[in-house]
Amino acid sequence: MSSMPFDFTPLLPAGLPPAAPRWTGRVKFDFTGGNNDSDRLPLDDLVAAADSVLRREGRTLSTYGLNSGPQGYRPLREFLAAKLNSDAGINCAVDDILITSGSLQALDLVNGTLLARGDTVIIEQDCYQGTINRLNRLGVTVVGIPLDGDGMRMDMLSGALDGLKAKGVRAKYIYTIPTVQNPTSTIMPVERRREMLRLAAAHGVPIFEDDCYADLIWSGQRPPALHALSDRGDVIYVGSFSKSIAPALRVGYIVAPWGVMSRMMPLKTDGGSGALEQMVLAEFCTRHFSKHVPALRRALRAKLETMMESVKEHFGAAATFDDPKGGIFLWVTLPENVDTQKLYQPALAAGVAINPGAEWSVNKAYGRNRMRLCFASPTHEEIHQGVAKLAEVCRSEFGVPA
Amino acid sequence: MSSMPFDFTPLLPAGLPPAAPRWTGRVKFDFTGGNNDSDRLPLDDLVAAADSVLRREGRTLSTYGLNSGPQGYRPLREFLAAKLNSDAGINCAVDDILITSGSLQALDLVNGTLLARGDTVIIEQDCYQGTINRLNRLGVTVVGIPLDGDGMRMDMLSGALDGLKAKGVRAKYIYTIPTVQNPTSTIMPVERRREMLRLAAAHGVPIFEDDCYADLIWSGQRPPALHALSDRGDVIYVGSFSKSIAPALRVGYIVAPWGVMSRMMPLKTDGGSGALEQMVLAEFCTRHFSKHVPALRRALRAKLETMMESVKEHFGAAATFDDPKGGIFLWVTLPENVDTQKLYQPALAAGVAINPGAEWSVNKAYGRNRMRLCFASPTHEEIHQGVAKLAEVCRSEFGVPA
Repeated sequence: MSSMPFDFTPLLPAGLPPAAPRWTGRVKFDFTGGNNDSDRLPLDDLVAAADSVLRREGRTLSTYGLNSGPQGYRPLREFLAAKLNSDAGINCAVDDILITSGSLQALDLVNGTLLARGDTVIIEQDCYQGTINRLNRLGVTVVGIPLDGDGMRMDMLSGALDGLKAKGVRAKYIYTIPTVQNPTSTIMPVERRREMLRLAAAHGVPIFEDDCYADLIWSGQRPPALHALSDRGDVIYVGSFSKSIAPALRVGYIVAPWGVMSRMMPLKTDGGSGALEQMVLAEFCTRHFSKHVPALRRALRAKLETMMESVKEHFGAAATFDDPKGGIFLWVTLPENVDTQKLYQPALAAGVAINPGAEWSVNKAYGRNRMRLCFASPTHEEIHQGVAKLAEVCRSEFGVPA
Repeated sequence: MSSMPFDFTPLLPAGLPPAAPRWTGRVKFDFTGGNNDSDRLPLDDLVAAADSVLRREGRTLSTYGLNSGPQGYRPLREFLAAKLNSDAGINCAVDDILITSGSLQALDLVNGTLLARGDTVIIEQDCYQGTINRLNRLGVTVVGIPLDGDGMRMDMLSGALDGLKAKGVRAKYIYTIPTVQNPTSTIMPVERRREMLRLAAAHGVPIFEDDCYADLIWSGQRPPALHALSDRGDVIYVGSFSKSIAPALRVGYIVAPWGVMSRMMPLKTDGGSGALEQMVLAEFCTRHFSKHVPALRRALRAKLETMMESVKEHFGAAATFDDPKGGIFLWVTLPENVDTQKLYQPALAAGVAINPGAEWSVNKAYGRNRMRLCFASPTHEEIHQGVAKLAEVCRSEFGVPA
């Protein structure tokens, strides 16, 4: 037998994504990703929750699905049904909820259930990179709708729907993050939500509502979810605990009518999502969620202040942004001559990671001089220092700030 | 706006699996699935592990991947590298290991990386249903190789590889469960493993080794893994904690050379597997795995005795089986006139769930009068009662036992 290493390359099918790079550790000043404020992790209460739920019903771990069936741990779904009702106005039963391995698996399940190569979907022009990447990989035509300070523009959505209709195309869904939009942080007012539902209904297109950030509005006041405002069962709703508790706990959920839920479930071929995480979250959230989240919000708002001050201090008038009403990121516009994709590498070499705007928009020209800066995970000091470094690099690469 | 419920049906792409049924609770006598013995769950030690690991490093939950990167919690990979070396003879580095959301996700990742519609793979004729179903869904041609008491037959494998070669077909992999095969419980001797590696190398076909049951051999002695016997990097190895600790903890793993590992990782789009489960398992296993598993084995062996006695008592000479050397299931052959797929429904109506053989074999005629009976989860009393009921139903449907 030869000891020449076996070459898998000729066996790989066409269309695989590029190979992963080796992981080389975290960057010192990391302004990317959904990492959260580790000081605000409710550790003592999570430890107590793990202890109490495991002692009480830990032996159910010996059974796939914990005796709750394939939709996930029932007490967690009960918590969610109550929380979604009181916070978002959603009226759903526990069996309208499917627990997923983070909302990323939820995106994959919804896409797997509705999309085939060549289909068309509508999304916000500036949009979560993970959504854009998934749609590109699936070979789907993506129509991006520009946003204003109130989220997706309804005049543009109406025009796009009419344009598709004229071509005989029925979009598979309208994907939106209406509440603390990623990356613009906009919150869609209730009247615009109603208008979106009217347009969707008129064109027979369902809405795919991604609501991962809604717990993180500074005021604690959020508009009702699109799901809550529809009486037609045409909204598939996705949420997560990553932003409100901890991202490494991979627990998200889908709320959908049984007709489409029952078609998604066979695509979830993982034997259920992690049970320990579901049990601990249910135990924790039932007792502590409503007092934990306001404390987290205050901490995030304080970090946002630091981020905005730092950007003002180091970029001056060269950087513009709206003051977000919630969330974990700031969407910054730089002068036209700055290309944030070209800023990325030298910034990284200086220890600063950013999200270039072109990766968070389907309009590459629009995103070109923009960037997303996440502020939840770094300390106040790291925000100060990292933004200072970023401005230095930007100055040496683009002469900005002057 | 109409309140007619929205109909998603026209939006569904072709080829979706059938809709899931509503879950109606667990069956009283459940002889299916990988559920484990809840009395043997090491609950106190798991509680202690959760407490200690969370107090020590729980704040890392605020970061995707816990500062360990996308391949999973590093202390768990360190435990695995040491365990796989001492138990299975595998020599691998922590960066050759990818933690997955159960070994089911591992199957999906390997298949996603290697298979396209129309490809050909080789598997054991009688085989894990989840593997068969995945391959069918992917539109892959499956060549099933018959087994004997020592696992996959090498004369038949050799003939199949030659036959494919004559047709100009290079199989994408040979999938095997060589150690406590599912459903036959056979253990492939070391010399046959070497022969399989020679055949695979001669035909340029890699091996996909599924090793989920290897911890559960009564003697505690296992042959080296195929992965350990190859010096060519042509074996992709998959394992799991579902059978040795608890199935609701969704933690499995892949061991593979970086060349193919780096192509799998971008297909894992879930933001990492559940961190709490990885942390608790690493903490528990490092301290207790080696003393927990022998106690579990003894309990499973005792349940197997009960299962074999019950089948002998209630089916008599009508049921034949080999005494498994490990695992959690008994593969039973009934007389030719029994169709276990037709036994399934009336048995279920009587509160007894079985795995019909035709669902666990690519040779439907061979599987027709066979069934898989899992014995880890039901109590000894439930095994007695359930097998008695099953025999009653079988008698009234097929006149067997006489």
